[in-house]
Amino acid sequence: MQIDDPAVTTEARAVFDRYERAIAENDTAVLDDSFWADPRTVRFGTTEILYGIEAIRAFRAGIARYAPRATRRVHITTFGRDFACTHLEYQRTDSGLIGRETKIMVRLPEVGWKVVSAHVSLLAGSDPGRVQKG
Amino acid sequence: MQIDDPAVTTEARAVFDRYERAIAENDTAVLDDSFWADPRTVRFGTTEILYGIEAIRAFRAGIARYAPRATRRVHITTFGRDFACTHLEYQRTDSGLIGRETKIMVRLPEVGWKVVSAHVSLLAGSDPGRVQKG
Repeated sequence: MQIDDPAVTTEARAVFDRYERAIAENDTAVLDDSFWADPRTVRFGTTEILYGIEAIRAFRAGIARYAPRATRRVHITTFGRDFACTHLEYQRTDSGLIGRETKIMVRLPEVGWKVVSAHVSLLAGSDPGRVQKG
Repeated sequence: MQIDDPAVTTEARAVFDRYERAIAENDTAVLDDSFWADPRTVRFGTTEILYGIEAIRAFRAGIARYAPRATRRVHITTFGRDFACTHLEYQRTDSGLIGRETKIMVRLPEVGWKVVSAHVSLLAGSDPGRVQKG
């Protein structure tokens, strides 16, 4: 099993970047397309516990706009040709809160790379006064 | 790629259960052994952002006791023979807060199943008064 094959990392990064653009633009079609269309897909959000693509799509449909966020760090690790773990550390530009987002991506037969699980959370106790700059 | 091969799910569940027992007993050796001994390993905790096994081990060494938690739901999905996503939804038995834990497990050459990434968070806004029983 090759870890961090550059070609695989590039593919995972492309999925990651497309998703971040869609969050910024609230492009629901792209966000929905990014997730595995399956009842087993999971999204743990800051205020949501969602099991299954239907619950995730219903959540997306109710969002008018995501809190704007600036990237602090991206860390991606890939295993073999078909598995990637992407980690995003971000700061909300409105509140200064620090957030973390883990996405598990799998290259699935026929449909290609999909997010099969996502976990988004705010760092407990993070507030603008405690945020480290840079 | 077989999804949810029962034999693979059983293996991932065994890693998961061993880890939960170690959390309950604060068995640092088992917790350390459960994680991939690599600089690329990630642990996003409720109040921590940890990159690399050294940072994760230093965190473990400083813990006297983990907040006691009761399992609300476990959801595991496996992809092929070497990749598993485990999801735990729990309730802290002291405070009633709802938590979520996602672990990404990979069967690595020679060392076997290891957690390569974990993300633990409390549900924003969860408090005992809002917790649904059962």
